[in-house]
Amino acid sequence: MDQILKSPPVSSKRERFEQAFVVVRQQLLDAFAAQGVPNDAQTWYKRNIDYNVPGGKLNRGLSVVDSVETMKGRPLTDGEFLQAAVLGWAVEFLQAFFLVLDDLMDKSITRRGQPCYYRVPGVGTISVNDATMLESAIYQLLKLHFRNETYYVDLIELFHDTTFQTSTGQLLDLITAPEDSVDLSKISLEKFQLIALHKTAYYSFYLPVALAMHMCQIPAAYPSSSRAETVHPYALARSILLPIGEYFQVQDDFLDFAGSPEKIGKVGTDIIDNKCSWCINMALGAASPAQRAILDTNYGRRDAEMEARVKTVFEEVGLREKYRVYEEKVYAEIMALIESVPDDEDVVLKREVFTNFVDKIYKRQK
Amino acid sequence: MDQILKSPPVSSKRERFEQAFVVVRQQLLDAFAAQGVPNDAQTWYKRNIDYNVPGGKLNRGLSVVDSVETMKGRPLTDGEFLQAAVLGWAVEFLQAFFLVLDDLMDKSITRRGQPCYYRVPGVGTISVNDATMLESAIYQLLKLHFRNETYYVDLIELFHDTTFQTSTGQLLDLITAPEDSVDLSKISLEKFQLIALHKTAYYSFYLPVALAMHMCQIPAAYPSSSRAETVHPYALARSILLPIGEYFQVQDDFLDFAGSPEKIGKVGTDIIDNKCSWCINMALGAASPAQRAILDTNYGRRDAEMEARVKTVFEEVGLREKYRVYEEKVYAEIMALIESVPDDEDVVLKREVFTNFVDKIYKRQK
Repeated sequence: MDQILKSPPVSSKRERFEQAFVVVRQQLLDAFAAQGVPNDAQTWYKRNIDYNVPGGKLNRGLSVVDSVETMKGRPLTDGEFLQAAVLGWAVEFLQAFFLVLDDLMDKSITRRGQPCYYRVPGVGTISVNDATMLESAIYQLLKLHFRNETYYVDLIELFHDTTFQTSTGQLLDLITAPEDSVDLSKISLEKFQLIALHKTAYYSFYLPVALAMHMCQIPAAYPSSSRAETVHPYALARSILLPIGEYFQVQDDFLDFAGSPEKIGKVGTDIIDNKCSWCINMALGAASPAQRAILDTNYGRRDAEMEARVKTVFEEVGLREKYRVYEEKVYAEIMALIESVPDDEDVVLKREVFTNFVDKIYKRQK
Repeated sequence: MDQILKSPPVSSKRERFEQAFVVVRQQLLDAFAAQGVPNDAQTWYKRNIDYNVPGGKLNRGLSVVDSVETMKGRPLTDGEFLQAAVLGWAVEFLQAFFLVLDDLMDKSITRRGQPCYYRVPGVGTISVNDATMLESAIYQLLKLHFRNETYYVDLIELFHDTTFQTSTGQLLDLITAPEDSVDLSKISLEKFQLIALHKTAYYSFYLPVALAMHMCQIPAAYPSSSRAETVHPYALARSILLPIGEYFQVQDDFLDFAGSPEKIGKVGTDIIDNKCSWCINMALGAASPAQRAILDTNYGRRDAEMEARVKTVFEEVGLREKYRVYEEKVYAEIMALIESVPDDEDVVLKREVFTNFVDKIYKRQK
């Protein structure tokens, strides 16, 4: 009870996290100006950061702070909060880096309720270079705030590895769904899973928790006091968080089809982009020969009427019900996985780290 | 004399360096396959590497090996050669990362005598993601070959810092020369220098030498035995290599105008791209009002006839002679800078490291 009183309410945690952004943003702008670049470049860099980094749901970034707090089992000191928030914002910068590039590659229209960055007048393909500057910011922030920590290299390597996994997922996504040749026989649930794992699960779920674990100085292995086994906490975290990430991608794909643009902040483009989404996989598995023919001739075309025909088939095969059933099933499976975390009093990797995530995304509408 | 006999001839050093590429390429492909990605993705990644990394002049990569050898003052062991070559190839991967993105942003046509990567059928903007995978390869190679070295973090930070400096140079280049609004009053020699410094000098000249210095475990500071001063070798190297880099960029700009496409492997696009190049700066400084008017109305337009009119003005103002005079002057200045390196017997940072560079680029035609 005492602890609950000391712990700041949720809204104020988000505010504190957003205040940390003011700090890291200024550090980045100061470092950039110190290179002696002219004012127009400084203004450009500032807009790049402000347009692309802070306007999201911040779930990934906040989950670093939440995870550190859960593992420490007490409210964070100001210094700890800032460090955790810096890691959280580094995840948000990584996300911004990928979204800027994705939107250009996918020819997307809107993102977070505003035009995609590459569509801002005068930006265009310069967005590609701007994205690399957002990526660089990650390592500048790590250097500024973690240079003297024993786990500094672990943080850097984790970001490197995650970046490569995400790029790999992007590649699978892009070559499975080429714009100019639609071939639904190339689509499979196995490919969907591989894409979801690489493109989403690592950076959105494993990365924030693993960063928090490093900050809490959790070692690579330790004995469990309640079970006759050695715990490998990073592998254990991965074994739970990657399935959560796949579930999240299923939601994302379903909302791309069924969500309202006002709520999700973007207009879905998976159908016209010929994506190997969960939705098309479900539809292919349930379609009659006539429905399959409609999908073959209408999926992946840059045409609103064709897109509408695909959506009609999605409704006819009962995609909404399939999604409801899937969500119940996967929720139960994930809760069972979380039971595999030893419930030892003396270790910092707690089940609550994982249930926090599931609670946040279960039945989400945006 | 003995040492000259033991040292392999130049052509065989290049061959050894190219053999090291076979090793690192296979390591990268194996690591990629180990992620469980399908064959089509593996084939794509292999083509990405083979199309973009090995076909250049390799000057940057080889200069790491040369610098290590010069500083050690003896031929390298096989293990040392491989480590130096890995650093050299990491520089070539960084170069490939930037060239793939540059060509897309500049709408360039050819590179190294072949179509720019983004123009390969089916690639297009996927090249953006492929570039990030080339960047990731740098850190995979460092991890594989340097994880246990005391200077591992120094290598990583050097690549991070250099990447950011180069992106900053790209940004300056792109916003000084917007495609849609040509305004020659925005162009200045000061901006040219700032762009050359960030976009070229750091990654092409300082980076290879600084990597070699770290591999030779040169400390951040040491006393000079011949002079009453403390040597800061990295700052000293920068003070010589950055001017060499600016000289190199002047050459690049001049060859973009005056070089033969067969020799330089690309068709120059600086004039139609509205670039703040050394050439336009020289022409603006020497143009009569009539010539200035021709430049104002014809520079930076995607039109071959207009480009030809600009080239005529370049000839009329005597750009070739200005270049000849510049090259003699800057060569003398750089040789004088190299004299500032203490000629101590007992330190490893030798003047020859720098003269090697100047010898390679002085009066180059490609």
